[in-house]
Amino acid sequence: MKTYAFAALSADKPLVPFSFERREPRPNDVVIEILYCGVCHSDLHTARNDWGWTNYPIVVGHEIVGRVISIGGDVTRHRVGDHVAVGTMVDSCQHCDQCHKGEEQLCREGNTQTFGGVDRITGAPTMGGYAKHIVVREEFVLSVPAGLDLAKTGPLLCAGATTYSPLRTWNVGPGSRVGVIGMGGLGHMAIKLAEAMGARVTVLSRSPAKAQDAKELGADAFLVSSDAAAMKQAASSFDLIIDTVPAKHELDPYLPLLDIDGTLCIVGQIGPLAEMSSLPLLLGRRRVAGSAIAGIEQTQEMLEFCARKNVLPEVEMIRMDQINEAYDRLERSDVRYRFVIDMATLKQSQAEKA
Amino acid sequence: MKTYAFAALSADKPLVPFSFERREPRPNDVVIEILYCGVCHSDLHTARNDWGWTNYPIVVGHEIVGRVISIGGDVTRHRVGDHVAVGTMVDSCQHCDQCHKGEEQLCREGNTQTFGGVDRITGAPTMGGYAKHIVVREEFVLSVPAGLDLAKTGPLLCAGATTYSPLRTWNVGPGSRVGVIGMGGLGHMAIKLAEAMGARVTVLSRSPAKAQDAKELGADAFLVSSDAAAMKQAASSFDLIIDTVPAKHELDPYLPLLDIDGTLCIVGQIGPLAEMSSLPLLLGRRRVAGSAIAGIEQTQEMLEFCARKNVLPEVEMIRMDQINEAYDRLERSDVRYRFVIDMATLKQSQAEKA
Repeated sequence: MKTYAFAALSADKPLVPFSFERREPRPNDVVIEILYCGVCHSDLHTARNDWGWTNYPIVVGHEIVGRVISIGGDVTRHRVGDHVAVGTMVDSCQHCDQCHKGEEQLCREGNTQTFGGVDRITGAPTMGGYAKHIVVREEFVLSVPAGLDLAKTGPLLCAGATTYSPLRTWNVGPGSRVGVIGMGGLGHMAIKLAEAMGARVTVLSRSPAKAQDAKELGADAFLVSSDAAAMKQAASSFDLIIDTVPAKHELDPYLPLLDIDGTLCIVGQIGPLAEMSSLPLLLGRRRVAGSAIAGIEQTQEMLEFCARKNVLPEVEMIRMDQINEAYDRLERSDVRYRFVIDMATLKQSQAEKA
Repeated sequence: MKTYAFAALSADKPLVPFSFERREPRPNDVVIEILYCGVCHSDLHTARNDWGWTNYPIVVGHEIVGRVISIGGDVTRHRVGDHVAVGTMVDSCQHCDQCHKGEEQLCREGNTQTFGGVDRITGAPTMGGYAKHIVVREEFVLSVPAGLDLAKTGPLLCAGATTYSPLRTWNVGPGSRVGVIGMGGLGHMAIKLAEAMGARVTVLSRSPAKAQDAKELGADAFLVSSDAAAMKQAASSFDLIIDTVPAKHELDPYLPLLDIDGTLCIVGQIGPLAEMSSLPLLLGRRRVAGSAIAGIEQTQEMLEFCARKNVLPEVEMIRMDQINEAYDRLERSDVRYRFVIDMATLKQSQAEKA
């Protein structure tokens, strides 16, 4: 089926209107009209080929919210008219131990990414959510619970899932002492989700100027990481630190903040970490871990948790044709805290003119 | 009480005969005649002030096995004539959460090290096990189970406890897939203990020449870390890797060997680790952790486990006056796998002549 979108045609050019063919729906497919799509750092990195694996043209976007407009004959999980969502993956092998555990993100054969992936049947490149429609097998289509604001739900699919999952892996609950490093798209969700789980949340930041924002997002405390006395005072006082910083950075200042058996979980940086000392690890049996997105079952659980607890990201709504400006602002961290594209602003006429 | 020993008098001189006063026994103290003392890398580092915290003169040694020769009036755990052991710590606060949990090694106030520590009552420096006698409060005196070969028990107190503890923390048992990096004093105990717990143990080494030794120690498999094809083949195949390498080294080659949720636990290096990539952490929710020795209760459990399973270190027995030569060999990793000093060779006359 024909659809239209905004696509990157090369690493150094802005996104432009674009039309392309979605696959014809298979019996287990859901056809979705996209209503909103969140803007993730990965979109920007992929569009600009920062990771070196982009093939052009590419349509990015993996924080997708929409409405089912048709279903294949075998689909049982979704009905026409349902509000649904799609996150960072659209398929997996479905037969390995991880898929059987509902951890498709860790599929032994590798999951199929929503954009930049390869369709497991046709071999065609997958295209993401900056588009009017998407076709996804039903197992990878989430149900949006009633009561969640559709316009704000998109960022839950990536920023939400990515921070919810480690909070659950490390059993955060009432009384947990959680630190959050970085207060961007991921960090602000980590604060809200950990708060909603009953944790005591402290934002760790180099910049005292962010204290007010942290408080407004619900954080209980704010720790200035350049304040040596405060950092020393905070030694051994966290069960879990969620590190959302998307760049190479030092872990040494943060590790002593973990209590015995505590974990610093990296969810932001994909690549090198600065040299670190083993000493705080040995002396407190502390751990450094990583986590990436969440399985489908847990993502659905997260959506229901957010609906029940009224947890939503702070978003700034943009038009589709503002995406290039939004990327420039994203690069400067000039967004509170996530852009969402109102896909009603994507006009077929733009693509047809292009 | 007067005792005699071998001591380091400065960083750059060999150990020499030495006599000094042990504290008079307190009501909760056990007086031990030392029969054997293992030789740990920490002894060498401390004697030579490699870590910069040594005060001279110092008597090192924390793999102590002996016989109770007298007890204070309040002692209930040990009797005169019992075979006992002392490891790397001789006291702790006894009232913090960690001490209450039996994790005195993680005492909130810091445990009192067997040598180079400070007596919590007198403030005097603590002196270790290269001596005829030691006086230790009863809570820090382990019972040597009947059947354990006293001459080989010493290294269990440090090398044994240090490797046993993470194997227990990470629930190693039948079917666990355990890797061991480094095949020295700690590494060879990790192999034996993990095998005795029912794990499948693989030694990871740069040197194919060590394969035979690994097999003789009980390892099920040997993986040459410079063999790229073999390393790739072994991806995601370990639940736990015990890293005993006592120097700065790369973790990047090893992290992808861990299965999902697997842990690489550092027990050897105290200090900087080479820069590592977060990618294997994120993609497999893998973890890097540290662990240091064990609590008293767990150390006792380990001794009983070793007695039951007949797990003992490989030792080379030396005379007290061979200690300097042993240090030189230790520096060249020329020992299979642990030196033990037969303290019967420490003569009072040597100290008196000195």
